[in-house]
Amino acid sequence: MRNMVRVNIRTGEIRTTPCSEDELRWGGRSLIAHLMLQEVRPTCDALGRENTLIVAAGWLGDTAVTTAGRCSIGGKSPLTGGVKEANVGGVAGSKMARLGVRALILEDAPEKPESRVLWIGADKCELLAAPELRMAEVGRTFQILRERFGEQAGFFCIGPAGEMGLGGAAIATTDQTGVQARFAARGGLGAVLGVKGIKAIVIDDTGATPDRAHDPTALGAANKELWQMLRDDPKTQNRHDYGTPAVLSICDTLGILPTRNFQTGHFEEFEAISGERVAELILARGGEGERGLPCVRGCLIQCSNNFADPAGKTLVASLQYENLGLLGSNCGIGEVDEVARINHLCNQVGVDTIETGAAIGVAMEAGVIPFGDAAGAKDLVRQIGQGTPLGRVLGSGVVITGKVLGVRRVPAIKGQAIPAYDPRSLKGIGVTYATSPMGADHTAGNALEMAKVLDQKKPDGQVAASLRLQVRGALLDSLGVCLFIRPAFVKNPDLMARLLNARYGWSLTFTDVQRMGLKCLEMEREFNRLAGVSDELCDVPEFMRTEPLAPFNTVFDVPREEMKRIWDVKLPEGVF
Amino acid sequence: MRNMVRVNIRTGEIRTTPCSEDELRWGGRSLIAHLMLQEVRPTCDALGRENTLIVAAGWLGDTAVTTAGRCSIGGKSPLTGGVKEANVGGVAGSKMARLGVRALILEDAPEKPESRVLWIGADKCELLAAPELRMAEVGRTFQILRERFGEQAGFFCIGPAGEMGLGGAAIATTDQTGVQARFAARGGLGAVLGVKGIKAIVIDDTGATPDRAHDPTALGAANKELWQMLRDDPKTQNRHDYGTPAVLSICDTLGILPTRNFQTGHFEEFEAISGERVAELILARGGEGERGLPCVRGCLIQCSNNFADPAGKTLVASLQYENLGLLGSNCGIGEVDEVARINHLCNQVGVDTIETGAAIGVAMEAGVIPFGDAAGAKDLVRQIGQGTPLGRVLGSGVVITGKVLGVRRVPAIKGQAIPAYDPRSLKGIGVTYATSPMGADHTAGNALEMAKVLDQKKPDGQVAASLRLQVRGALLDSLGVCLFIRPAFVKNPDLMARLLNARYGWSLTFTDVQRMGLKCLEMEREFNRLAGVSDELCDVPEFMRTEPLAPFNTVFDVPREEMKRIWDVKLPEGVF
Repeated sequence: MRNMVRVNIRTGEIRTTPCSEDELRWGGRSLIAHLMLQEVRPTCDALGRENTLIVAAGWLGDTAVTTAGRCSIGGKSPLTGGVKEANVGGVAGSKMARLGVRALILEDAPEKPESRVLWIGADKCELLAAPELRMAEVGRTFQILRERFGEQAGFFCIGPAGEMGLGGAAIATTDQTGVQARFAARGGLGAVLGVKGIKAIVIDDTGATPDRAHDPTALGAANKELWQMLRDDPKTQNRHDYGTPAVLSICDTLGILPTRNFQTGHFEEFEAISGERVAELILARGGEGERGLPCVRGCLIQCSNNFADPAGKTLVASLQYENLGLLGSNCGIGEVDEVARINHLCNQVGVDTIETGAAIGVAMEAGVIPFGDAAGAKDLVRQIGQGTPLGRVLGSGVVITGKVLGVRRVPAIKGQAIPAYDPRSLKGIGVTYATSPMGADHTAGNALEMAKVLDQKKPDGQVAASLRLQVRGALLDSLGVCLFIRPAFVKNPDLMARLLNARYGWSLTFTDVQRMGLKCLEMEREFNRLAGVSDELCDVPEFMRTEPLAPFNTVFDVPREEMKRIWDVKLPEGVF
Repeated sequence: MRNMVRVNIRTGEIRTTPCSEDELRWGGRSLIAHLMLQEVRPTCDALGRENTLIVAAGWLGDTAVTTAGRCSIGGKSPLTGGVKEANVGGVAGSKMARLGVRALILEDAPEKPESRVLWIGADKCELLAAPELRMAEVGRTFQILRERFGEQAGFFCIGPAGEMGLGGAAIATTDQTGVQARFAARGGLGAVLGVKGIKAIVIDDTGATPDRAHDPTALGAANKELWQMLRDDPKTQNRHDYGTPAVLSICDTLGILPTRNFQTGHFEEFEAISGERVAELILARGGEGERGLPCVRGCLIQCSNNFADPAGKTLVASLQYENLGLLGSNCGIGEVDEVARINHLCNQVGVDTIETGAAIGVAMEAGVIPFGDAAGAKDLVRQIGQGTPLGRVLGSGVVITGKVLGVRRVPAIKGQAIPAYDPRSLKGIGVTYATSPMGADHTAGNALEMAKVLDQKKPDGQVAASLRLQVRGALLDSLGVCLFIRPAFVKNPDLMARLLNARYGWSLTFTDVQRMGLKCLEMEREFNRLAGVSDELCDVPEFMRTEPLAPFNTVFDVPREEMKRIWDVKLPEGVF
């Protein structure tokens, strides 16, 4: 991964250039932070000509290290106004890395709306007209792409929401079989791709000659160790069997499951949409349903699923916790098949389910449709794809939905919807939501894993914990690995340094690596500062500080001033 | 004006308390800046419980000084996110001042949506239920208020847009006769009043015993001098005859008349909506039409009008330049009667015509209706009042309209629509739009008056000129006088100090007064900084820096860095 591929959308020029020393130092999320700070005017219009859409391989993107095929998609977010990285599985990322491409950088925008495909191969890169894809849904788009470019390729694409430039638009990608749609969902990056007139990116690694690791033996040994540690971890089997939906019952018990637009943290029908129920239904229904699917190659956890209806026909793949939380309990919908159908519709339209579920919850609070109205929710998502005025409002995200519909209880921070962990009874994640350069994003530092060691209903210690978790998130997103392999690094942080040293010939200690994670956050914060995203805006929504959350009647009470000083907290050295 | 009236909307408690020393020092806009900085958490939700709506009398509000009855309405703006002051004529302001009320402060919000009237009299203040006013249009509301509370009272009210909490909502008031509706239009303050459940404020000064000036003789002499200077100024007669619409032909000639969503600065049909044409039609049609109406008591300019249709029946009063520019040329509409009708509909719904005209222009660019479609534009404004999804989008202002409809050419700065002076060929006002704590606001420092002495097509000297104009604006808005009397103070700045000294027994020089203007801006900037409105966001929209404006093919090219340093520029002492 020694090259950058730069595409100027306006002129059509495509250049492959060797990475600079600086660019070789960074990977994934940290590479995006570095490039954005170097190349993009922070105050530019996120959907204007000056913003850049970056696809970056993680540090370990071209290795066989477990889950390392994830990739980072980034740019300035139309929702937060700051730098955004959305991390995604699937196979396209590792194919790009195998082609030696460290980052793909899409610059400028077309003179007029376009629908084109960017094709990246071993010997050439091309911009191809694809008018037949205009306003096509995501599933149909992948189908056409597979037919035109072959099943061996990796694909990214947007749906109608991205083409309309809506702030809730996501970027979709697939696993090798094409069964699962996966999304670089947060921050509206689908809209950034959309205004560039790029409907899809096709990455064909046929004939690729990937870089050799600096020390393949050491890399293999470290990966083996990592693999063994994960095998020994009892959580791995649970994740394989139940996937992310396993979290739903836990969140309900903790009282942090968003229910009816974050009115309560317990959903009386939670069992019907729980991970246990999802797994049970998949087993019972058979047909196309399947548990334990891989999302990236080389993953041993394989937590994904294909969720089928009673007739065994796929409803959606993969059904995940955030979908169940935001489209289910948050909308008062306790029928899991209906949640899966709404999820599928979101995938087809190409919108973030977190942003959209939050927006529908707000629309329900406004009385547009009642809580629990699954048919109404499906209609609303279809309206996004149709571009009706109401659909466009919802597709623009929860903040605009709240403003337009006159709702004051809007679960969003810095312009972005709050994921399915209510911060009133999980205070550490509230600190992350408020202070992360990413806006409200659970993957930026999720305190759920601290729930056993730090009382999440109390404000004490949450700021320091969040900083540690945020550095952790920045590192995992820069490595290009899944959050779910973190237990191995928590147990043995040096493993991370060993993997990097073996791949690159570096001689880092874990403390050095940790500094790079902190530096990633610093670069992002600097971009945001220059973009006018002020640290003064670091807080949860007002109603979360005043409205007690049932069942534990908590409010968010981490002091604002303490959160503002998070970057002055000393990070414990050597601890992941 | 030694008292503050504080109303807690939630508890219903109304307290009249003497002003503190600090509060006695400030007036109008500067009093709002002072109070907001002292009392309101800057990062609060502008439409939440913590924001405050302030009605403040100007320094000279209870005097007979010409035009001094204007008043300031302020709070945190739902559009800019910063402190906002909207200045308005009519009679209610001077009535409040005559009651000795320096500021009326509305705190908190009701538990549930309400429709109440706040009645302020000489002996008592009351919150009264008024369910019959719920969702009533502005004209109908004033009619009911007059019937219920008598014609002697002054009135403020909101229309349906304010009740819906839409960002484009304005606060209406009337002249003594009730013919003209006037608006504290900018920044969405109508929504702030709306979420407080206050449909109207009634001010009855029957039995008032206004403060005596410290030196009535000196005050009378200074006012007489001011009066004479205005009489001697040839602009006064022009303003009386043609009002603000006189500016339209000038702006077209300068190439700054926004036309079809700021695509050009010249409108081929400008003559049909010009001030000359408006005045001519009023004279020719007779009936209810009238030129040269007063808006505040004691005004000698009397620039307002009552614009009637060919049958002599009122279409709108008063028809002003901003309405003609934003609802006319900016929408490609050259039929003056139609512009007047759209204007009237905006007034009834209770929205800012600048914000709404800009939003309709953007909707036209999006293809919702074609440019020039007056019937379509009327329908859109009606939809705002009806609260349809599209109507609510437009009523939320131009930024949300652009985001929802996917338009990139959005004439707004810091969340607020740009008035009818395109900054590409009037660069000084661009500096004001970008740097003013008020967001894009022509009354915050309009460089049009500098067009003869400073080449407005060149960037040179615009930053220093804007600073001087901004201090000027802050002072006029703090005095509570009309911008149109500024020529007298330009000629004789000491007159301003003499007026203040005579009213209050102060011993200020003009340099002292000027420092108070600068201090007003400093307080506003500090509030905005704490509110997270970053100075980094100080710029015109991207398209204005890249898209040349016909007919002079100018782009906005005042360097961003130079604008950021405006507050370091030394203000020339003693010059107004």
